[in-house]
Amino acid sequence: MTEGKVSKESIVHHFKELQDSICNSLQSLDGIAHFEEDNWELSTGGGGRTRIIQGEHIEKGGVNFSAVSGPSSDRLRALLQKEGDTFFATGVSIVLHPANPHVPIIHLNVRYFEMEEEVWWFGGGIDLTPHYIVPEDGGYFHRKLKATCDQFDAGYYPKFKTWADDYFFLRHRNETRGIGGIFFDRLTGDSSNMGDLWSFTLAVGESFVDIYSYLFNRNHFRPFTQVEKEWQLYRRGRYVEFNLVWDRGTRFGLETGGRTESILMSLPDLAAWKYDYIPPEGSKEAETLKWLRKGIDWTAF
Amino acid sequence: MTEGKVSKESIVHHFKELQDSICNSLQSLDGIAHFEEDNWELSTGGGGRTRIIQGEHIEKGGVNFSAVSGPSSDRLRALLQKEGDTFFATGVSIVLHPANPHVPIIHLNVRYFEMEEEVWWFGGGIDLTPHYIVPEDGGYFHRKLKATCDQFDAGYYPKFKTWADDYFFLRHRNETRGIGGIFFDRLTGDSSNMGDLWSFTLAVGESFVDIYSYLFNRNHFRPFTQVEKEWQLYRRGRYVEFNLVWDRGTRFGLETGGRTESILMSLPDLAAWKYDYIPPEGSKEAETLKWLRKGIDWTAF
Repeated sequence: MTEGKVSKESIVHHFKELQDSICNSLQSLDGIAHFEEDNWELSTGGGGRTRIIQGEHIEKGGVNFSAVSGPSSDRLRALLQKEGDTFFATGVSIVLHPANPHVPIIHLNVRYFEMEEEVWWFGGGIDLTPHYIVPEDGGYFHRKLKATCDQFDAGYYPKFKTWADDYFFLRHRNETRGIGGIFFDRLTGDSSNMGDLWSFTLAVGESFVDIYSYLFNRNHFRPFTQVEKEWQLYRRGRYVEFNLVWDRGTRFGLETGGRTESILMSLPDLAAWKYDYIPPEGSKEAETLKWLRKGIDWTAF
Repeated sequence: MTEGKVSKESIVHHFKELQDSICNSLQSLDGIAHFEEDNWELSTGGGGRTRIIQGEHIEKGGVNFSAVSGPSSDRLRALLQKEGDTFFATGVSIVLHPANPHVPIIHLNVRYFEMEEEVWWFGGGIDLTPHYIVPEDGGYFHRKLKATCDQFDAGYYPKFKTWADDYFFLRHRNETRGIGGIFFDRLTGDSSNMGDLWSFTLAVGESFVDIYSYLFNRNHFRPFTQVEKEWQLYRRGRYVEFNLVWDRGTRFGLETGGRTESILMSLPDLAAWKYDYIPPEGSKEAETLKWLRKGIDWTAF
């Protein structure tokens, strides 16, 4: 248990380290590709390091660090229902679109936000979008997340799992984006528990490599057919729909002048739409659709 | 000049005829593919006929007719800033994604809306999104639209052309979707001019076949390279971004329980994203980007 306020400099330092270590691990996993780094600055203050991989196994992936600040807009104040003249926001965001349809898409975000120093919070989460749902892999994924949560608070996993189910949901399709994960936002308190909340947020970020390596190694050698590749492109279409229509971070960024290319690094290399496509009954594709709903206790698999 | 209120039954009848004649013409143009029709109903009232073509020359296209009604939601009243317990909306919408990157994407919409009968208006427009901008083709397109407008009101083209520039604009990219066209909404009045407004709206719809046939016939036999095909997929990514992030009709439909597959028929078969792609200076792709801005007088080409 750490007491006292955690400085934003320390958070920034650890988020950069997190980005570095995740990029190193992913390069080893892919085996061939390297991340290309783009350093950028925002005119209002701060900037980021966007790192993109377009590899053999990771068809397109981004690992983004940013730390930005500036005057609060009316829009930001309205959205947050908080007063304050300036804001500071830092975080690490990852989306990986693998080449092999048997490897799931994964998304991580950990972030820290403050307004005028006295208002602050942490947020983040990890969620998984398999093109083909393998219940045991879903079980592994959720048990790992639960174990990370349980180190800090036994109430976290149930609460943040439900939050992910609700957040990563395509209302216009009445389906979840994938098998969910955890999502949390506005974790706040006072100087007595800020250290714990920060440790939890960082632990979520640090759990990423183990989780993804396991799922990658179990699946990336599996051969796949043209039908499976097409299904992957079609499911990526849903990913695009979620990110552009419903994801609050994406929409807020695009509407308020964030750096477009860093925000949209989450979009896949290639995505497909087919009019009113319904996979044949009993097919693996139809089976996967049955799992795309809220409220499944994945830890039971 | 037609006086008196135009009945919604008559509007529906003509919109269905418009859909039929456009589909027939597009089938002749494509030469091989036929439209598949889906008849659907909304639980609140009414329904539509969605027609999809996936052809030799038109890679994916939709020509949708709908006429729906129901109780007005709070959301609808807030959006329209109008009171009224029920609404009725009918229209024809088209989006065509051609196979050949030298043929432009085209979009048409004509619509009629009423609330409790005393509040009514027409809206619509046509806009063009070439993957490669050919100024003379842009000139032809805009002169045809201007000629259609000028038959009714010399003020229409300048006003509706500017409206299209503003509407079909990707703020997060600071670029227009294509070379614009015309866009108009809430054309209303009283029984003395309703007939004229309706005739104008229908004339816009009826101008579609001539315009698209001309542009298609000029370009669809041109050979294309792999680079040009990839550029097309990349530009389609922008089309997806516009439709899902900014298009009010799409967003309103998805958020309020419209028929998702009919709304998203506008999305292409295949689209691509590349991180921070900047085409080589002096390339045809870079030239096209220079034209993606508001305020160009296309009728001068």
